[in-house]
Amino acid sequence: MSLLDFFLKSRKENTAKLAKERLQIIVAHERTSRSGPDYLPQLKQDILDVIRKYVQIDPEQVTVQLDKKGEQLSVLELNIMLSDDKPQNADDNTEETKS
Amino acid sequence: MSLLDFFLKSRKENTAKLAKERLQIIVAHERTSRSGPDYLPQLKQDILDVIRKYVQIDPEQVTVQLDKKGEQLSVLELNIMLSDDKPQNADDNTEETKS
Repeated sequence: MSLLDFFLKSRKENTAKLAKERLQIIVAHERTSRSGPDYLPQLKQDILDVIRKYVQIDPEQVTVQLDKKGEQLSVLELNIMLSDDKPQNADDNTEETKS
Repeated sequence: MSLLDFFLKSRKENTAKLAKERLQIIVAHERTSRSGPDYLPQLKQDILDVIRKYVQIDPEQVTVQLDKKGEQLSVLELNIMLSDDKPQNADDNTEETKS
């Protein structure tokens, strides 16, 4: 099964539950004994920064998981729920109108 | 099966064949009918740029796949083989010594 097939399969299972816009990012780093330091924690922030060039990200809608499996594999997983075509400052305006 | 389990499984199948350092990056963008333009092609370049902050990338060792499944799912897959802890200009020096 290819990685794309896996995505399609897991997506089909989730579609009934939610029909929101979503970004899922996986970074798998297979290391050797000669690899340098693990840079995935810093890379996580860099990736979020470049995504912000294209879409607004609500920090509360981001889940991050960083798994280390022994010395040889690190996997970073980012799940970002994106607001429904509604910029975040539109919410702020609503708040202002209320007060 | 979680995404991490999938990685571990596919990794086990590959380990016998190659023991190189490798980065694999998957970006899955689930879109709704109200989503804006698809930004994965540009995001690809941005991600390669931030990875270059941490490791040297040989452009010949990068494979990129961008799949669109209808209007609702775009998947970007980057596979980067990293050189064995050996900066690329070390090769250049070897060449100089020979000539």
